[in-house]
Amino acid sequence: MTTLTQTNQDIHRFAANAVRFLSMDAVEKSKSGHPGMPMGMADIATVLWCRYMRFNPANPKWLNRDRFVLSNGHGSMLLYSLLHLTGYDLPMDELKNFRQLGSKTPGHPEAGHTPGIEVTTGPLGQGIANSVGLALAERTLAERFNRPGHDIIDHYTYVFCSDGDLMEGVSHEACSLGGHLGLSRLIAFYDDNHISIDGETKLSFSEDIPQRFQAYGWHTQTVDGHDQEAIARAIEAAQAETGKPSLIACRTVIGWGAPSKAGTASTHGTPLGAEEVAATRKSLGWEWPPFELPPHVLGFWREAMGRGQAFEQDWNERLEAYRKAHAAEGKELVRIIEGRPATGWEAPLQALRDKWISEPPEADATRSASGKALEAFAMSHADLIGGSADLTPSNNTRVKAYQDIAPGSYAGRYVRYGVREHGMGAVLSGLSAHGGIVPYSGTFLMFSDYMRPSIRLAALTGIQVIYVFTHDSIGLGEDGPTHQPVEHFAALRAIPNLRVYRPGDSRETLESWAEALKQRDGPSALLLTRQKLPTLPGTGEGGVARGGYVLADAPDGLELKALLLGTGSELHLAALARDALAAEGIGARVVSLPCWEVFAAQPESYHNDVLPPAVTCRVAVEAGVSQGWERWLGTTGRMVGMTGYGGSAPAGDLFAHFGITAEAVVKAAKAQLG
Amino acid sequence: MTTLTQTNQDIHRFAANAVRFLSMDAVEKSKSGHPGMPMGMADIATVLWCRYMRFNPANPKWLNRDRFVLSNGHGSMLLYSLLHLTGYDLPMDELKNFRQLGSKTPGHPEAGHTPGIEVTTGPLGQGIANSVGLALAERTLAERFNRPGHDIIDHYTYVFCSDGDLMEGVSHEACSLGGHLGLSRLIAFYDDNHISIDGETKLSFSEDIPQRFQAYGWHTQTVDGHDQEAIARAIEAAQAETGKPSLIACRTVIGWGAPSKAGTASTHGTPLGAEEVAATRKSLGWEWPPFELPPHVLGFWREAMGRGQAFEQDWNERLEAYRKAHAAEGKELVRIIEGRPATGWEAPLQALRDKWISEPPEADATRSASGKALEAFAMSHADLIGGSADLTPSNNTRVKAYQDIAPGSYAGRYVRYGVREHGMGAVLSGLSAHGGIVPYSGTFLMFSDYMRPSIRLAALTGIQVIYVFTHDSIGLGEDGPTHQPVEHFAALRAIPNLRVYRPGDSRETLESWAEALKQRDGPSALLLTRQKLPTLPGTGEGGVARGGYVLADAPDGLELKALLLGTGSELHLAALARDALAAEGIGARVVSLPCWEVFAAQPESYHNDVLPPAVTCRVAVEAGVSQGWERWLGTTGRMVGMTGYGGSAPAGDLFAHFGITAEAVVKAAKAQLG
Repeated sequence: MTTLTQTNQDIHRFAANAVRFLSMDAVEKSKSGHPGMPMGMADIATVLWCRYMRFNPANPKWLNRDRFVLSNGHGSMLLYSLLHLTGYDLPMDELKNFRQLGSKTPGHPEAGHTPGIEVTTGPLGQGIANSVGLALAERTLAERFNRPGHDIIDHYTYVFCSDGDLMEGVSHEACSLGGHLGLSRLIAFYDDNHISIDGETKLSFSEDIPQRFQAYGWHTQTVDGHDQEAIARAIEAAQAETGKPSLIACRTVIGWGAPSKAGTASTHGTPLGAEEVAATRKSLGWEWPPFELPPHVLGFWREAMGRGQAFEQDWNERLEAYRKAHAAEGKELVRIIEGRPATGWEAPLQALRDKWISEPPEADATRSASGKALEAFAMSHADLIGGSADLTPSNNTRVKAYQDIAPGSYAGRYVRYGVREHGMGAVLSGLSAHGGIVPYSGTFLMFSDYMRPSIRLAALTGIQVIYVFTHDSIGLGEDGPTHQPVEHFAALRAIPNLRVYRPGDSRETLESWAEALKQRDGPSALLLTRQKLPTLPGTGEGGVARGGYVLADAPDGLELKALLLGTGSELHLAALARDALAAEGIGARVVSLPCWEVFAAQPESYHNDVLPPAVTCRVAVEAGVSQGWERWLGTTGRMVGMTGYGGSAPAGDLFAHFGITAEAVVKAAKAQLG
Repeated sequence: MTTLTQTNQDIHRFAANAVRFLSMDAVEKSKSGHPGMPMGMADIATVLWCRYMRFNPANPKWLNRDRFVLSNGHGSMLLYSLLHLTGYDLPMDELKNFRQLGSKTPGHPEAGHTPGIEVTTGPLGQGIANSVGLALAERTLAERFNRPGHDIIDHYTYVFCSDGDLMEGVSHEACSLGGHLGLSRLIAFYDDNHISIDGETKLSFSEDIPQRFQAYGWHTQTVDGHDQEAIARAIEAAQAETGKPSLIACRTVIGWGAPSKAGTASTHGTPLGAEEVAATRKSLGWEWPPFELPPHVLGFWREAMGRGQAFEQDWNERLEAYRKAHAAEGKELVRIIEGRPATGWEAPLQALRDKWISEPPEADATRSASGKALEAFAMSHADLIGGSADLTPSNNTRVKAYQDIAPGSYAGRYVRYGVREHGMGAVLSGLSAHGGIVPYSGTFLMFSDYMRPSIRLAALTGIQVIYVFTHDSIGLGEDGPTHQPVEHFAALRAIPNLRVYRPGDSRETLESWAEALKQRDGPSALLLTRQKLPTLPGTGEGGVARGGYVLADAPDGLELKALLLGTGSELHLAALARDALAAEGIGARVVSLPCWEVFAAQPESYHNDVLPPAVTCRVAVEAGVSQGWERWLGTTGRMVGMTGYGGSAPAGDLFAHFGITAEAVVKAAKAQLG
């Protein structure tokens, strides 16, 4: 390490103060925001961004850049300041428009919205957990692409986090997993500022954080977060540790530099006020007005652009050499750099579909069909990485040919997430956000509740993640109501930009996988059964791609009198009801609605084709609450579903007990027909 | 401690084996369940239940009983075996009907369903977190009632937990809080059996659990979970520790006693099979057929009944003495024992309502109105304990007269939960399940996602918890889409037995509090605004109690042409739209729907009064997704709401940007009227 001269130390302090003033001035102007954290972490950020982090502001998507995550996303002005200062495409006007409509500087950092933002953060704990996914992505891609003499993937993942992040359970889950896996290129800076919204952290928080992280298998250090040389030494020690992730606990003063408010909760979430800002200017000897930067300080920061260009240029040269030495791998790597999807999986998937059309599979659980589908195409999809939250044998998520990703060994394609659904959710988002990976997971549908905050952020950010949720209704049977989803279809469908697939048989399951794999601008959830379902005539012929379709029309010779709508394990009940109604001379159509979001996006003419408005006798059958079904049922339609919680008994007993049967569908239809 | 004689050791081993055989035989008979854990933890359970735990099988509701929580609820047969053996009202036939329809022995333990079950467990991590709430409840009631010489509340909370429980983030949150608060009467037994569903725990889990818990401030011990004397010594050491909760890490063998399957994942979640069960009988020298118990072993277990009677009788004598010495406190304690609700809060609440009727409050945020309501009645409600997940100043949940509950000091009425929403949710359930406490919490509505698994279990169990969720829409403004609920109204309304209140002004807020306080058979959620709302004519006069009501009818002289439905911060937009329509000669009625669940439960005649079926021109206005509104809107009605995520800007800008305005309501109504 080179130690800094006095002049250099001065410029570094000035550099940090630039972050402080941009942050406090932007918060002041918008009359909203969190100045205290950026002021407290400015020294750490300056050391990291100016002396260690490798990135290229001119190309925020450079594949081998170090990833930076601001888990304490409320301090977004820290990140916006850094992006502006280092020369990302984030002009000063955007900082002046902090938290205003249409700006690139929303209240919390949003990936895909602002250049240089890796993951969307703000809901506490998510960012640190995402960073475990980013670091894991780096290691798996390194294993996949690096060759002797060609360490083409070798970046770090740096993350800033707060007391709040570490109080959240998701940080526990992900950091425990990160420690288990020994992700040594993950370096976390804990902003130990002793302040939370309610006041001093000691009101609610007295953990020994380094000890906790040691228990997870992390390397830990404790430093003064305002001693730039100590921070630099800690970063180098963390980089030198090659077996464990690192936590650097940084004792900081929130609102550092504000003469009367520093170190208090009042700097956390509200503007400092004109008087305190002026006093801070005076106290720190900062002569420049808001949003103006002294040229020598800006010049110092903007050196990042030259460094960045050199980093990427050097890497591009390494890439050239790599491509020469390893043509096939190089081609794949270029595909990933260019953001093109993996190919090769469509043919085996199509082959299985063709087979399942010509030889309809025996009755099977859709979780099992999902497993068979994966078995067919997973090894042909180069970017796919699977996993389960300790329900592998139940979720059918592990292909036989997979190797596990394990401590120090990242060549595998399967993650043993442990009983950590929420951590898994956030790690999936990190894997996806990194690039080069299409992650999927497995757990029971019930536990989608545990991962919900991460699912929402993936949907908000618009990244590809595939959630396999099995045991999706009372059909799971004996485990009982604690494990039986009834409200979860509705709850997941309520999340904007999440596609929820509930396939009705093996062939719809395969089609749902195909759709989810193609869907790159948002997450998909596959809701699958524990119990066996018959293969239904009419499935597997492209219907799932439109979200809903006519599975079986009213039999020839019978006027269409009723629409029977179903999903998943109840779809076959609608089919049985159609036949029973036909036997009584009543023409009924079965409509399969495996994905409402996709169906809703179809043109109105298609809606009217599938659900003719004139046919008002409508019955929906789905083993969940009715919420939302009114949209397809109209005011007179009826729902055969659940009105409360399930029970503990064999699945067949429960369907009978709760009246979710073909007979009930017939009865509901006839009641409407009078 | 008395050490056991050899004979006693033998009987204790037999006693433990009784648990093992009941468990494995019940799982065998039902062809479903988890035998491995009961077999592994039988020795620990025997020591605890036979030698230390104070309970009275004849009166499962005895107030000062030790609480027992099976956090690893999949091992439910352990608990059912213990309940049967010690003489609770759980006959052998119920064990034979394990996991069958209508039995008292569902797949996972359900409080309120089976005598002796304290909290509903199964979803991992919940039980251990509930136990922090139970232990906190004990301490707060001890502070409230105990007097010198009268330790009338002095029980322990014991909890069994697994790897899975400790992997879950909620266990981190709650155990960190429990350590912070120094809940020394909480004693946890960690079943360190090295096995999870996927195989050996080391596949995904390599934490140093004792070190982690030491970091939380817990007392920790490690013992052989099959050495009954060592277990006994550990329990006594844990009881002797008066400043910290205790974790006893017990090294166990899953499926202990099964000759070929013990120690393997195959004992975890499936029956052992007839052959292995027979081999286990042989290996352990257990001569009795399934569901038969040797009289001397049953006799040994049933001594619990005599002990229990003596425990309670002794306590009743202490209670008598207490009542004589402290008449007023004794009266309160008897009220709690008898399960009667607190009184005294209605009058101040009513007084504030009267005041707000005669002097309508200025425009105010409903979170602020909620704070004012609490200020009025909270100190008059003896059982109320509030708190917030580090958003106290934003949630307005802390009454000025409250003292904080703090480490070693439990006389206060307010819990600083820290940034631990999920832990808070589970602790609330524990507080409520204990008896004597009506808990309420505070966080942003966004973070209801973090606590969702706990909310669901409270609703399933039917216990009173009040969740205050503020910042309930894009109205929170600048914090942006990461913090703006759009799908959360729908997602919470989907949960059966949860009442979701979204009041439209100060007076509806007060009424919502009144309803939530009266609602003892399930949880309630109050969804409140950050932004100010005008007080609306017609609120505060009892409408909330019916869930929905006519706030303002079509003006005199105008025919009723349109129904304008609204909740919360959008209700006043419906009122403005009504006036605008009236100015154009169109008669419109404003319907306030603050609580759908309560409204839905009203008779159809009331529905038809409020929402006359003939009036099909309907507009709903609510700053959330439309899902579910079709129920009230019919096929032709329209929704003025959100179709995707929000944005970061001042609230007014966002409402205008997303078109949630009175003008939009007017336009939607006129479009239907043609």
